[in-house]
Amino acid sequence: MSRAGLSRLGQRIQEPAISWLMKLTLSQPGMASLAAGFTDNLSLPVEAVREIVESVLARPRLGRAALQYGSTAGDESLRDLTSQHLRASDMEASGKPQPSSLYSPDRLLITHGSQQLLYLCTEALCDEGDWVLVEDPTYFVYLGILRSRGVRARGVRMRADGLDLAHLEEVLESMKASGELRRLKMIYSVTYFQNPSSITTCFAKKKAALALLKRYESAAGHPLYYLEDAAYRELRFAGDDVSSALVAPRGASRVLYAGTYSKPFASGARVGFGLLPEPVFTAVLRIKGNHDFGTSNFLQQLLAEALARGHFRKHLPRLRARYASKRAVMTQAIRERFPSGVRWEDPQGGLYVWATLPSRCPTGFQSRFFKQALAAKVLYVPGDLCYASDRSRRPSRSSMRLSFGGSEESGIRTGIERLGRLMEKHKL
Amino acid sequence: MSRAGLSRLGQRIQEPAISWLMKLTLSQPGMASLAAGFTDNLSLPVEAVREIVESVLARPRLGRAALQYGSTAGDESLRDLTSQHLRASDMEASGKPQPSSLYSPDRLLITHGSQQLLYLCTEALCDEGDWVLVEDPTYFVYLGILRSRGVRARGVRMRADGLDLAHLEEVLESMKASGELRRLKMIYSVTYFQNPSSITTCFAKKKAALALLKRYESAAGHPLYYLEDAAYRELRFAGDDVSSALVAPRGASRVLYAGTYSKPFASGARVGFGLLPEPVFTAVLRIKGNHDFGTSNFLQQLLAEALARGHFRKHLPRLRARYASKRAVMTQAIRERFPSGVRWEDPQGGLYVWATLPSRCPTGFQSRFFKQALAAKVLYVPGDLCYASDRSRRPSRSSMRLSFGGSEESGIRTGIERLGRLMEKHKL
Repeated sequence: MSRAGLSRLGQRIQEPAISWLMKLTLSQPGMASLAAGFTDNLSLPVEAVREIVESVLARPRLGRAALQYGSTAGDESLRDLTSQHLRASDMEASGKPQPSSLYSPDRLLITHGSQQLLYLCTEALCDEGDWVLVEDPTYFVYLGILRSRGVRARGVRMRADGLDLAHLEEVLESMKASGELRRLKMIYSVTYFQNPSSITTCFAKKKAALALLKRYESAAGHPLYYLEDAAYRELRFAGDDVSSALVAPRGASRVLYAGTYSKPFASGARVGFGLLPEPVFTAVLRIKGNHDFGTSNFLQQLLAEALARGHFRKHLPRLRARYASKRAVMTQAIRERFPSGVRWEDPQGGLYVWATLPSRCPTGFQSRFFKQALAAKVLYVPGDLCYASDRSRRPSRSSMRLSFGGSEESGIRTGIERLGRLMEKHKL
Repeated sequence: MSRAGLSRLGQRIQEPAISWLMKLTLSQPGMASLAAGFTDNLSLPVEAVREIVESVLARPRLGRAALQYGSTAGDESLRDLTSQHLRASDMEASGKPQPSSLYSPDRLLITHGSQQLLYLCTEALCDEGDWVLVEDPTYFVYLGILRSRGVRARGVRMRADGLDLAHLEEVLESMKASGELRRLKMIYSVTYFQNPSSITTCFAKKKAALALLKRYESAAGHPLYYLEDAAYRELRFAGDDVSSALVAPRGASRVLYAGTYSKPFASGARVGFGLLPEPVFTAVLRIKGNHDFGTSNFLQQLLAEALARGHFRKHLPRLRARYASKRAVMTQAIRERFPSGVRWEDPQGGLYVWATLPSRCPTGFQSRFFKQALAAKVLYVPGDLCYASDRSRRPSRSSMRLSFGGSEESGIRTGIERLGRLMEKHKL
């Protein structure tokens, strides 16, 4: 198809790998998909939403307000409640009081899912040719956003508790030497039960990363931001919560915090939010105005009521228990089925198990393993999709992201069984 | 505030005039605002939505589907119903059968309001420095989108039935001569009860505009699209519907049709759609995936049910009657209060009256008239906001957009009365 006349963005944009995987799933009956990042279906709060919507629409004034346009930044009461929720989480996680100013609703923006916030922040900060640092591995949809916009991504290695700080420093130092630091805008970090690795970044590392960025700001000539994607924060089923980067020194001025109600409440409701410092907040707000004037008021009222009336709070433990049990189904099956040459970690939250095969067994779309998996009717997300393509380090080509979020227990077991059989055949 | 480190877009983006106007409205008690483009509050279909949501959520399988992620293009049944709705409208308007292929759900995309579609089309087609032709006057928010993205806009004069074709040809010819035609991507036209002028473009003009664009395509070196913004199409309270540009020759390959359910059903639900030719459809779909993966499934189910169960069809006549009566309140007040030097047209649909004062009385933000109106507690949208700033022709500096959509009858009367008194003082 000729792309003549499209913008550079229009010409560059590719079909996201995940759409292709989803089409495969739908078109092949009996496919066990461990690929999609869908949330659990059975635990969706249908009854709670039913009750809330009824209570809103039964009151004509409230009902009409919900069906009318709202403001671009979002519903005031939802912003208040979100600010309180975030502050309470950080106070509990840090064991310390936190100033309300850090969580001011005035710097809080409601978005159509937190994905929209990632897009808006990137629009507000990055020109074609700019750089963003990402984690190795990282959320592949975000890599697609960067690629489509001509923004360059460089990977920073991960350890079990977050970024490899020595590598981060090395990357910053080399960018300073090459002059590329002047085009670096931010580091993008999925800090809780990371998609895809399920790694949670400890608070000390958030603090250290911010301190490192500070050291390089004068050479960069502008602020270097820390985009904290906390999409999975609430999906914790073991261990304690960790404070957000907002709490660290410079958290108020350099952290772009992206949160969501899609994953912990209802993905079909698509309500996310961002807490942002100036001048990013104002720029993002205005761009959001151009996108859509503001997120559907109806959805916002729904979430505001869910928070105010305790539905959200009551839903979380149920959801966590549900994911914990699905996780157990998957890890149990992995223990039984995967050969010892496959490395993987037991996740403490989120939706994914990240498994790494021996390096002689690549898992990418073009690999024998992937094609055989397809033939055996099991799908996963190839790990190599989750790495920025820069030549400074070698990405893992033999990993896979296995999702236990969307599938039912039997589908999880079947998928792992099929993968295990294939791994045996490859003598891993 | 320092904007160092922001992208060019982030640095360029300005506060939309309408936000400023809305803040003024909210901060000043007793302000009669004829500025906001809000929809009528009393006619919002609270009971219908209540019934629909209840019927969806009472069925657990349907309810869960509504609260789960959907596909990026949108819910299949909503796309089917939208395609049928659009085809039926065009068949009725044209009095002819229209091929179903023209309205295929495969080229239909559901968006978070039609505003998002305008943004996505612009992203897919326009680079910084490209040109878009707009109407004189045009929807000022779209001008803001273009400005923020560094896309240049040139105005084409309007007549009572749409574009001034002679002027369009003149503009195209001069762009061809200057070489700028190679950067022209499309013409943006609000074809039904235009915001702000309430002009409806007749079908002959749509056809002629497409034919003219065709003549210049080889010199442009790429397709020249016709972005038809039909946001107000359903808000018709007099006269007959007009066929969309899709029906014209090349409609299938060159028309980007933007429609919405926000205005004719519930603005708080924010569901719009686009019917697009390739390669624009695929590019827009992928960019939409990067924005938000797809519009809230919950909202889409709501609209699909509203269409399938007849709520939408039943709502329209009520809504039209309501706007017709508010329009009558405004035009009656104008007849009584505005001096004879003020020109205005009685709208046949939409939400606005466009009034033009004698040219010696400018109405812009900096004008004496605007400041006096503010002091008299009445707000309007200054007409000069609605013109592309190019030096090729003189914009109207003495017009105003008066909205009867959002205000109550008494507010409309009060606002017009205050404006009329001020006009008398200016001896118009």
